[in-house]
Amino acid sequence: MSIKSLIDHIKQKQSYLCVGLDTDDQKIPLHLRSQKDAVLAFNKAVIDATLDHCVSYKINTAFYESMGIRGWEIMQETLEHIPDTHFVIADAKRGDIGNTSAQYAKTFFEAYGFDAVTVAPYMGEDSIRPFLEYTDKVTIVLGLTSNKGAEDFELQRLQSGEFVYERVLKTVSGWGTPQNLMFVAGATQAKELVNIRRIVPDHFLLVPGVGAQGGSLQEVAAYGSNKDIGLLVNASRAVIYASQAEDFSQAAAKAARSYHDEMRALMRS
Amino acid sequence: MSIKSLIDHIKQKQSYLCVGLDTDDQKIPLHLRSQKDAVLAFNKAVIDATLDHCVSYKINTAFYESMGIRGWEIMQETLEHIPDTHFVIADAKRGDIGNTSAQYAKTFFEAYGFDAVTVAPYMGEDSIRPFLEYTDKVTIVLGLTSNKGAEDFELQRLQSGEFVYERVLKTVSGWGTPQNLMFVAGATQAKELVNIRRIVPDHFLLVPGVGAQGGSLQEVAAYGSNKDIGLLVNASRAVIYASQAEDFSQAAAKAARSYHDEMRALMRS
Repeated sequence: MSIKSLIDHIKQKQSYLCVGLDTDDQKIPLHLRSQKDAVLAFNKAVIDATLDHCVSYKINTAFYESMGIRGWEIMQETLEHIPDTHFVIADAKRGDIGNTSAQYAKTFFEAYGFDAVTVAPYMGEDSIRPFLEYTDKVTIVLGLTSNKGAEDFELQRLQSGEFVYERVLKTVSGWGTPQNLMFVAGATQAKELVNIRRIVPDHFLLVPGVGAQGGSLQEVAAYGSNKDIGLLVNASRAVIYASQAEDFSQAAAKAARSYHDEMRALMRS
Repeated sequence: MSIKSLIDHIKQKQSYLCVGLDTDDQKIPLHLRSQKDAVLAFNKAVIDATLDHCVSYKINTAFYESMGIRGWEIMQETLEHIPDTHFVIADAKRGDIGNTSAQYAKTFFEAYGFDAVTVAPYMGEDSIRPFLEYTDKVTIVLGLTSNKGAEDFELQRLQSGEFVYERVLKTVSGWGTPQNLMFVAGATQAKELVNIRRIVPDHFLLVPGVGAQGGSLQEVAAYGSNKDIGLLVNASRAVIYASQAEDFSQAAAKAARSYHDEMRALMRS
């Protein structure tokens, strides 16, 4: 799916919610656990319940990889259940030397057919270029993340006075365009969004950390949006585990609707 | 396998060679390609041919992931073919927020039973700690990599005067011990090994970039070894694609033996 189609979907639905399917087989409702492929049944129910309120799903590959080989099958079957209208992200945080990154790009863009994949920038240009060569796909590079560990390296200052993450945004934005490149910008660092928007005014930002990690949607919208909205706000645990009882899918729908309502109001204000 | 067992194996064999199984289904010998599971047959032949000359195998997960779900089965069957005497590394470059990194650690240490996994440091402490909690396993964190892209961020100077990668080594070495933590240090940056050894004198270094990427084994040994040798030197393409004809396994054995002979001579000098 192109960024243009994503923008159209956002404007039409008045939502920029991405639902994160970080499905942990130890956290799904008890009544499902005895069932074969409980994770898949859970995902399908959550997708069906939230589809009208979001424009994107983000599959956190770690939760599927940890199930062994069957996890990859469940990931693929989950993907097949998501309609083409929705932008599908592999949250995989890959990145390696060029010939290896080319294999990761092939994995997520070709073998599984994701629209986008998240990439870690530590190893520099040749670790990111092979993803960007897929110009009809989207590479989402880590800028400033939502976790405490962001202080350790991302928020260290270079001799130029910039933070490490600012250098990442400035440098990497030169390798792609707003049509094939987005950045991760954590909602727990909402004030930094002003700064991030100064560096990358035109790129979409994938914003995790709203909800379970404590970020505020209102601040994200105020500081992070641009003329095309330019935001995908991800909520994972706050939606998919809104209830861990038999009403989990109704509770997920309610949580997603609540984000949707807030986004609609913010887009109109 | 413990680091102590690895050191014993290195001293007994007088080799610190790690063979990298970056097996690309487009690069294996033509006569194998028509065969079902050609990659697995290739890996088994390469392992059998090189076992006497190396102490470790490194599986570059990207090359298996790009084959889709069957790739993970081939990875697992390759692992089962490697004897317990050899230290087995998942070169996966993972790393995410804490609860997600815990899933990656479970993937490689529990679901597949690797001895070690490579981890990218960009996201900081909570992205690395979950791996280090497996105190009987080894976490291998990227320090200075062997690719050109290392200049983009790893070799940027902080206000303190340190390179970003030096800060990574200093900070991360405080989170683990030489028994459960190693660092990646590229052979193409041999002079930096002096500096790396000053910062982390006691940790093992996993050194890629000897061979196809142009690094020199003699320089690596001179600048990078410590009292326990403290080195695992990886060769991938230079060994596994030493010949792409029917004699590929004999050629791999010959290439591995050549590294072994050079390492033995360097350890005695």
